Amino acid sequence: MNAPARQRVAVPRPADLPAAVFRQSLMIRFSHCDPAGIVYFANYFDIANGVVEDFVLGALGLDYHEIVGPRRIGLGFAHVECDFLKPGKMGDHLTFAVLIDAIGTASIALMLYAYRDGEPVLAMRLVMVTTSLTVLRACAIPDDLRAAAERYKETCR
Amino acid sequence: MNAPARQRVAVPRPADLPAAVFRQSLMIRFSHCDPAGIVYFANYFDIANGVVEDFVLGALGLDYHEIVGPRRIGLGFAHVECDFLKPGKMGDHLTFAVLIDAIGTASIALMLYAYRDGEPVLAMRLVMVTTSLTVLRACAIPDDLRAAAERYKETCR
Amino acid sequence: MNAPARQRVAVPRPADLPAAVFRQSLMIRFSHCDPAGIVYFANYFDIANGVVEDFVLGALGLDYHEIVGPRRIGLGFAHVECDFLKPGKMGDHLTFAVLIDAIGTASIALMLYAYRDGEPVLAMRLVMVTTSLTVLRACAIPDDLRAAAERYKETCR
Amino acid sequence: MNAPARQRVAVPRPADLPAAVFRQSLMIRFSHCDPAGIVYFANYFDIANGVVEDFVLGALGLDYHEIVGPRRIGLGFAHVECDFLKPGKMGDHLTFAVLIDAIGTASIALMLYAYRDGEPVLAMRLVMVTTSLTVLRACAIPDDLRAAAERYKETCR
Repeated sequence: MNAPARQRVAVPRPADLPAAVFRQSLMIRFSHCDPAGIVYFANYFDIANGVVEDFVLGALGLDYHEIVGPRRIGLGFAHVECDFLKPGKMGDHLTFAVLIDAIGTASIALMLYAYRDGEPVLAMRLVMVTTSLTVLRACAIPDDLRAAAERYKETCR
Repeated sequence: MNAPARQRVAVPRPADLPAAVFRQSLMIRFSHCDPAGIVYFANYFDIANGVVEDFVLGALGLDYHEIVGPRRIGLGFAHVECDFLKPGKMGDHLTFAVLIDAIGTASIALMLYAYRDGEPVLAMRLVMVTTSLTVLRACAIPDDLRAAAERYKETCR
Repeated sequence: MNAPARQRVAVPRPADLPAAVFRQSLMIRFSHCDPAGIVYFANYFDIANGVVEDFVLGALGLDYHEIVGPRRIGLGFAHVECDFLKPGKMGDHLTFAVLIDAIGTASIALMLYAYRDGEPVLAMRLVMVTTSLTVLRACAIPDDLRAAAERYKETCR
Repeated sequence: MNAPARQRVAVPRPADLPAAVFRQSLMIRFSHCDPAGIVYFANYFDIANGVVEDFVLGALGLDYHEIVGPRRIGLGFAHVECDFLKPGKMGDHLTFAVLIDAIGTASIALMLYAYRDGEPVLAMRLVMVTTSLTVLRACAIPDDLRAAAERYKETCR
């Protein structure tokens, strides 16, 4: 196949992921799927946001909803890219793994990989930008989030 | 800002778009937005799919739903990337423009740009892969779609 | 069929709708549909909210997004019921009609009917409650909305 | 409040639910919520479909995705109604309970209740209709589903 050139995100095999990596399993539901019977691509981004919520809570130990709610710091994305490697189907059980690729002044780049029975299904890169929701502008990563992100990144080396 | 390095998709100014470019306007709705009051990123991908439907119908002159339905040829994506440049808000009127970047054997790479009052709001690259929905494998672009895509690409040089 | 008893919402024929009724047409998209190839029921509620947005703007002459945004008055629903009469399919063009059934102190009951080629596809009753988003409690319908709703209800008698 | 008359679905207190009732807990996510900061009503219907999937699997012991997929029997809804009693917020943990209200020839009426800390948040009635996806018409409830539904209904008396 002479596909248009693009830079593929390299996907580690599950066995090559760091031992401390955050993993989350979930089932592909009826409503994730489209008339083609496979996961509608936009739903993968919504699923990914849920995995990021769980990652912030479970791996970073911070309350995602408190950050975005009372603390008024947005955790949205400035850049997203995704390789859809295999179609996901209703009833599939996928395991997501989350890694931190880079930490900037106001941004954290995350890698998400999803596997089905050890086989990569998708690879996503999400550049999260911390934003003051009061003025809708990027703001420095708050100290607790930065410390937790750096700790996690270190642990997953 | 020391953001993690990434390759930004260059966004043409509206005036620099080819005259024949397909444009589609739409209003950002309440339900597109999240508790931060701005468009939830996953919804932009759903919006984009609707714009692609309208593009196939309006610019390529083909019946998207007949292709995906009775003809059983999927028009899903193998790769997607997006720069979110400005937050979109409820009631915003966005204008989308669609260009064809590359045509492969079984794939068509599309560029989508969205503008608000002439200012770029997002830039997206979508690599659509034609898929036999019977066997869930990539298949050669059907002749009518290829011809229409090449014609459009030529017109928008 | 011995279906569980329920009170069917009676659906007027299109010709029996008041001449002044607000109508909105839209196309069923790929992403509205599920693996059964028909509109996923939850998406009809999202579609309905968009029709209500357009109704508030087009028939009541008020800025929905300004009410919900800067004016901080929620226009959510306290009660919803729907009869799904015919399956909706990709590419279908549906026409929605909106009527006001009742106006209370803090609520407006709307009827939405959708037709495909004159045939009823769904009937929905939506009880919208005006809510102060500052304290998340029902509040009296603001004067401009009440006046416009009463005028519309009168016009559609 | 002089709300438009409607028949409220009565909501049992959690302690009054049958001991054998199927329960499912889930967290309200960022993406469930709207610019008002509370769950967008259409998302509750999507959440409900997921709870029904889990109910069919967990309480009825049947493979929802096999029924809807290979067996080509749709489990969509012909009628839905819902009382939204309290706004749901990001990070809320809701417990859903599912009861079978009635079993017809080609339909099963379900009651869903959601609670937050024992307080009712919503009550939903969903009339599921078994449909042949080959001809898109209602078909008799398949034997295994009928037997399991009757057993569950009996257990939850």
